[in-house]
Amino acid sequence: MANGTANGLASRVHGSVHVIGAGLLGASIGLGLRARGVDVTLEDISPTTALLAADYGAGRARAEGDAPPALVVVATPPDVVADVIERALRTFPDAVVTDVASVKLAPFLELTRRGVDLTNYVGSHPMAGRERGGAIMARADIFAARPWIVCRDGETPPAALALVDAVALDLGATLLEMTPQEHDRAVGLVSHLPQAVASLLAARLVPAPEQAIGLAGQGLRDTTRIAASDPELWVQILGANREPVLEGLEALQADLAAFVEALREPDSPGARRRIADLLAAGNRGVARIPGKHGSRERFTTITVLIDDRPGQIAALLTEIGDLGINMEDLRLEHSPGAQIGFAEIAVLPEVAERAVADLTERGWRIL
Amino acid sequence: MANGTANGLASRVHGSVHVIGAGLLGASIGLGLRARGVDVTLEDISPTTALLAADYGAGRARAEGDAPPALVVVATPPDVVADVIERALRTFPDAVVTDVASVKLAPFLELTRRGVDLTNYVGSHPMAGRERGGAIMARADIFAARPWIVCRDGETPPAALALVDAVALDLGATLLEMTPQEHDRAVGLVSHLPQAVASLLAARLVPAPEQAIGLAGQGLRDTTRIAASDPELWVQILGANREPVLEGLEALQADLAAFVEALREPDSPGARRRIADLLAAGNRGVARIPGKHGSRERFTTITVLIDDRPGQIAALLTEIGDLGINMEDLRLEHSPGAQIGFAEIAVLPEVAERAVADLTERGWRIL
Repeated sequence: MANGTANGLASRVHGSVHVIGAGLLGASIGLGLRARGVDVTLEDISPTTALLAADYGAGRARAEGDAPPALVVVATPPDVVADVIERALRTFPDAVVTDVASVKLAPFLELTRRGVDLTNYVGSHPMAGRERGGAIMARADIFAARPWIVCRDGETPPAALALVDAVALDLGATLLEMTPQEHDRAVGLVSHLPQAVASLLAARLVPAPEQAIGLAGQGLRDTTRIAASDPELWVQILGANREPVLEGLEALQADLAAFVEALREPDSPGARRRIADLLAAGNRGVARIPGKHGSRERFTTITVLIDDRPGQIAALLTEIGDLGINMEDLRLEHSPGAQIGFAEIAVLPEVAERAVADLTERGWRIL
Repeated sequence: MANGTANGLASRVHGSVHVIGAGLLGASIGLGLRARGVDVTLEDISPTTALLAADYGAGRARAEGDAPPALVVVATPPDVVADVIERALRTFPDAVVTDVASVKLAPFLELTRRGVDLTNYVGSHPMAGRERGGAIMARADIFAARPWIVCRDGETPPAALALVDAVALDLGATLLEMTPQEHDRAVGLVSHLPQAVASLLAARLVPAPEQAIGLAGQGLRDTTRIAASDPELWVQILGANREPVLEGLEALQADLAAFVEALREPDSPGARRRIADLLAAGNRGVARIPGKHGSRERFTTITVLIDDRPGQIAALLTEIGDLGINMEDLRLEHSPGAQIGFAEIAVLPEVAERAVADLTERGWRIL
């Protein structure tokens, strides 16, 4: 199978890792570390979640007589993260404690306010996620080639930092160092602001007539995809990172007001120019986003045309199996009223050419 | 096997087709029709563009002595579409004239105001495109399984309508009928509003520090992808569809203001609730977007655990075929590092229970 980072290499992590919170991030960390041979224990406030994550291969429950972990990873919702960090530091006084919350300044200030000794605490944030959470969505590869921010503090022992770095590197992430303030401002812009905007845009679809929704294309799908995220989680994140998010939203409000005003009076002097300027600024903004280096780029997508008849997809997949093509992902698209649909098959780039040739030879139409 | 629609079948279009405007849409239409054996001629205000599209296989220049076309497709930018339609109707009085502009009411009103005889005119709009335009981006398949709206008028001769329908069907599109007003309101919401919002969001990245941009993930990429669109084209489209777009933007302004106010005063009564409500409305809105076969809400998703072994998915789909389960959509998820993956199968709610029972009986694990 595909992933070279997870299997077959020795882990950089020394000692066992205890994960508190077995949701998407916690269970994904467990899966990734276990694939590297690390002993991972799990706990979750929901016993069902903990069991599910364990069944899924993300770790095991701590047992009596287990040695204390070398590292505790707090992967709980942000509103309890400070409490759980404090408890972990007290429960495992010799362990390094890190967390993976999307906001770094608020928990740090809260722990400082409480006078908690933070010598063994290293805040971190893997920039990974999916629009649906939960252990069931966990994947070992969600951190691959993604930034993993570590917030260092002059007083943190180097060994503690090294342990957190080791987890991030084991999971294939790219280490970045920031202060909590720098982190929160950056994610406020590139993660929290898009989340709020996508949600507000998607909310406009609630009262829309069915006929309009039926015309939705990829543009609408992409711009609203993350609006499927968990509202409870995001109320916490946005609340915990209020200032940077507000700054972004207020700047957006000003641009939106200028845009609306120009569109309302298109014949007023410079109105079209102001609209064009804002659209051109959008061009420049999107051009600044670095190309993707995440998991999707590892694969080449082959699009196969399929008849909208029962059995065609199974026939295609049987053929793919017969041909020995190792399919990494599959996405089916078809449309009401259309006689054809598409199957998008993700394969490793090195096998794509042969797969296309083989499928074409067997009579499948490749786009 | 698979595709019956594009090659090897006789075209539904009778007569030659003249395309005015050899950009992305015009050249794509030319490519698709020529693949069906239709004689396509091309013109463009830019001789270079016309030659490029011809080189690309999208058609040929009209020659002296050519019979008049049966159909003229106007695929120019929206600000000149009414002029070009009028000219085409006069130049080829026996031809049917259609256009593919993204806005339908404004050109219709303009032509009516000028007293142009619109008997042979049928407005249409294929909901297809790419964020980059130009003949060089043309593809015969961009219309496949996409809506193609035709604006009928009681006085349009059936033969004229049939010819426009034939082009849409030849290109694999799904025909939909709307009034110009219905069309403009619908695309204002599902296409023009997301474009404006994506541009305004992407514009926020212009002044951002490099460090923040470096943290960009898939969420930011998806929410801003269409902000790469051509500003000049979009100034025209937004201007030509001002009322529906303004309505959407103003509703968004109101929601945004409520959101900002609640976030600014999170401890005021009901503030968190108002933020959560807007995020939850986003959930509901995005859930209305049809995946592939109409609205996702209409289907029940069954999640089947599958071994991460070759052939398992084909085996599952064969079984689904054998059981007579009508699968509406399929999504495959698997993860490097996890021993299992899952297939999400969308079925009509009324058959979901039996499908789960049947699959369970055959030994599949359903989540």
